[in-house]
Amino acid sequence: MKTELLFSLWEENSFQKLRAFLAEENPIDIAEMLEALEESEGKSLPALYRLLPKSIAAEVFVEFDSDTAERLISALSDKELAETLSEMFYNDTADLIEEMPANVVKRILKNCSPDDRKEINRLLKFPDGSAGSIMSTEFVSLHSEMTVKDALEHIRKVAPDKETVYTCYVIDERRTLNGFITALTLLTNPVEKSIGELMESNVISVTTNDNREDVAKLLTKYGLLALPVVDSENRLVGIVAIDDAIDVLKEEVEEDFAVMAAITPTEVSYLKTPVFTIFKSRIPWLLLLMFTATFTGMIISAFENALASKVALAVFIPMLMGTGGNCGSQSSITVIRSLSLGEIKLSDTIKILAKEFKVSIICGACLAVFEFVKIITLDRFLLGNGMDVLIALTVSLTLIAVVLFAKIVGAALPLAASKLHLDPAVMASPFITTLVDTASLLIYFSVASMILGI
Amino acid sequence: MKTELLFSLWEENSFQKLRAFLAEENPIDIAEMLEALEESEGKSLPALYRLLPKSIAAEVFVEFDSDTAERLISALSDKELAETLSEMFYNDTADLIEEMPANVVKRILKNCSPDDRKEINRLLKFPDGSAGSIMSTEFVSLHSEMTVKDALEHIRKVAPDKETVYTCYVIDERRTLNGFITALTLLTNPVEKSIGELMESNVISVTTNDNREDVAKLLTKYGLLALPVVDSENRLVGIVAIDDAIDVLKEEVEEDFAVMAAITPTEVSYLKTPVFTIFKSRIPWLLLLMFTATFTGMIISAFENALASKVALAVFIPMLMGTGGNCGSQSSITVIRSLSLGEIKLSDTIKILAKEFKVSIICGACLAVFEFVKIITLDRFLLGNGMDVLIALTVSLTLIAVVLFAKIVGAALPLAASKLHLDPAVMASPFITTLVDTASLLIYFSVASMILGI
Repeated sequence: MKTELLFSLWEENSFQKLRAFLAEENPIDIAEMLEALEESEGKSLPALYRLLPKSIAAEVFVEFDSDTAERLISALSDKELAETLSEMFYNDTADLIEEMPANVVKRILKNCSPDDRKEINRLLKFPDGSAGSIMSTEFVSLHSEMTVKDALEHIRKVAPDKETVYTCYVIDERRTLNGFITALTLLTNPVEKSIGELMESNVISVTTNDNREDVAKLLTKYGLLALPVVDSENRLVGIVAIDDAIDVLKEEVEEDFAVMAAITPTEVSYLKTPVFTIFKSRIPWLLLLMFTATFTGMIISAFENALASKVALAVFIPMLMGTGGNCGSQSSITVIRSLSLGEIKLSDTIKILAKEFKVSIICGACLAVFEFVKIITLDRFLLGNGMDVLIALTVSLTLIAVVLFAKIVGAALPLAASKLHLDPAVMASPFITTLVDTASLLIYFSVASMILGI
Repeated sequence: MKTELLFSLWEENSFQKLRAFLAEENPIDIAEMLEALEESEGKSLPALYRLLPKSIAAEVFVEFDSDTAERLISALSDKELAETLSEMFYNDTADLIEEMPANVVKRILKNCSPDDRKEINRLLKFPDGSAGSIMSTEFVSLHSEMTVKDALEHIRKVAPDKETVYTCYVIDERRTLNGFITALTLLTNPVEKSIGELMESNVISVTTNDNREDVAKLLTKYGLLALPVVDSENRLVGIVAIDDAIDVLKEEVEEDFAVMAAITPTEVSYLKTPVFTIFKSRIPWLLLLMFTATFTGMIISAFENALASKVALAVFIPMLMGTGGNCGSQSSITVIRSLSLGEIKLSDTIKILAKEFKVSIICGACLAVFEFVKIITLDRFLLGNGMDVLIALTVSLTLIAVVLFAKIVGAALPLAASKLHLDPAVMASPFITTLVDTASLLIYFSVASMILGI
């Protein structure tokens, strides 16, 4: 609806009304409207962008995805680009640079002031996935000898350039982190009190090299709005704000889902990803898993004669493999998520395996009884006379063994991956399914040859 | 390490040191330490709880899980319970009540002041999963004729009882929501300015009946610290704060993972969940999926003679079903997540299916070529002479059809679920696998009977 209003104002050339309208809107909504107008009406996004009041142009800019940002940059003059960049936070510029091709990066850096360039280059040096790579260097720092009044005056002056003013950090002349004080404390205490007296010195901090996911979890665990980042000498170098932490957690969850779906994660949204890119993110896993199915093929091939003499056995192959796969993914996904949430640790391995053992015995027994009864009643009727008590016994015993194997392996593999410092999610369903499929068939034919003597 | 310090202070009966130590710690850490001491050293948690300074006891209390909270409540005297309850936020008490058995609920309500009881009962009436059920009623409200100075004085007075002071809401005498103003704006503007002049009147709000997940997404999308909740007449009744929104998003993600693992979600952490409860959360899905495997059984049974005449065909059943399952979950998980992130909408259905169609054609063709070559080279060598060009052709053609079917169905079912207002995640892997398994076999035997004439 708002997009239509924007469109009609644009069509009528009511630029003044347009500017007034845009000045009232949220930058995130404006970015969406501009993208929608470009896509549906073919309006030039750079032309629309130029209509934005300077005060919000940069805020809108950071909301665009990298494709749009790149096109926009190439359409902007050096002066326009420099204006936008000067309004952006350093960490947003650093993020932008990481997504742009070399020639655009050159142009961006050329249009930053020397001081800004230095700050941005410093941020770019932190390794991907580290706290340093997501931190903001624009925070409010105070000194312990300041009074509340001094602090409030300082905040008033520096606020426009800061990521947040709600948590301020107290440092000494060597920039060592000594404590923090919230805006709430400043607002509710007498103005003559000193910061040193009021600050909280029991401060939770992380270092620049800490894993960004751990940092994000720490922030949400303690319900903080920001977390200070220090260097190896406990000097304050940045903060991670809650919204950046939420972005990290979202990305990590999407990665876990992608790995479970046997897809290489992509950062662009589904509809914007070209078909060939989707193909490339999916085919390696499909090929890999198809080739590993050679093992199940080999097992069936080895028992070909047994199968030929009792074709009824083939009837239960899909059910056994399916149940094994489901049991395996129940355990593996439970363990992967519990590890990821920090509910279990590697030292709990014995407890976890013991628990899965007990659960699998009850589950296996329950499934076996149901399947036994089903084969000698329903299946005999539906699938014909081949279904006798010995087949039922074979299938039921196999079920118990398969459930046990699937649940233990499903729980153990993510723990093993974690022990080897791999992402436990790579041990999700597809891999476990392959392993469980192979084992299921081996167990099935072994039990069958014992009971049916084939 | 800190837990050990706490333990040794307790063992030495140094209660004064203990209190001093606890007063410095974060409530979340204290809750963890008390639970750990109870579990590892058999220390009475209520006895430890009583040592806490009154100011932080309630903050520690809300961090306990429901089992611990229930035990603790039964150990506390009415007076102690009333003290803890009076320090708690209404929405925390309401959450607690929802998790307690009837007799405990009675005791909790009896120990609340009449005013508190009224507030809590009002919160309890909102349906599960609504914005009303997660909102806090303790927010700062201002009037537009107040000056910044008035507002700051008001905040100073009411701050201790409020969920947040960083976003204040501007209402009129009928409690209609007219705008909001941040603490940042208050801190950076002249004290004589009026709130009406400075407030942002373009305010994003939700109603009490809105879905809590949508509310949480809105909050994180706009990077807000709190979102106002209004009733049907636009009267402000509460706020949803960022930390409650994060909790909602976490829960929803865990539910999605659980559904994909074919598990009924539980709220208690894995290690604390009894074996029988885990069994109950897993067995219904295993039984259901085992019974649906009757279809695959029936198909194999129907083609028993064909299979008997060409047992080599059985070799590829696991591979075909596995590849189909993997293709299906790649598409379904992609669509489920994109829906959940709001990247795609139901109106994009045609676009999505067209995209999956193209991807599946390329994937299918690629897999078919690889498999064809593999069968007439590697498999012939590994699996014996049964592997000829006709078998290779049968398997390859089946692969293309299976990949196509799996990807289209995998994308379509979550969209259909969403259309029917069901959670798209219920259409995740296990259900799609069953459907794809059945279809794969039907396609396989049909292609085989055409090509091999069996």
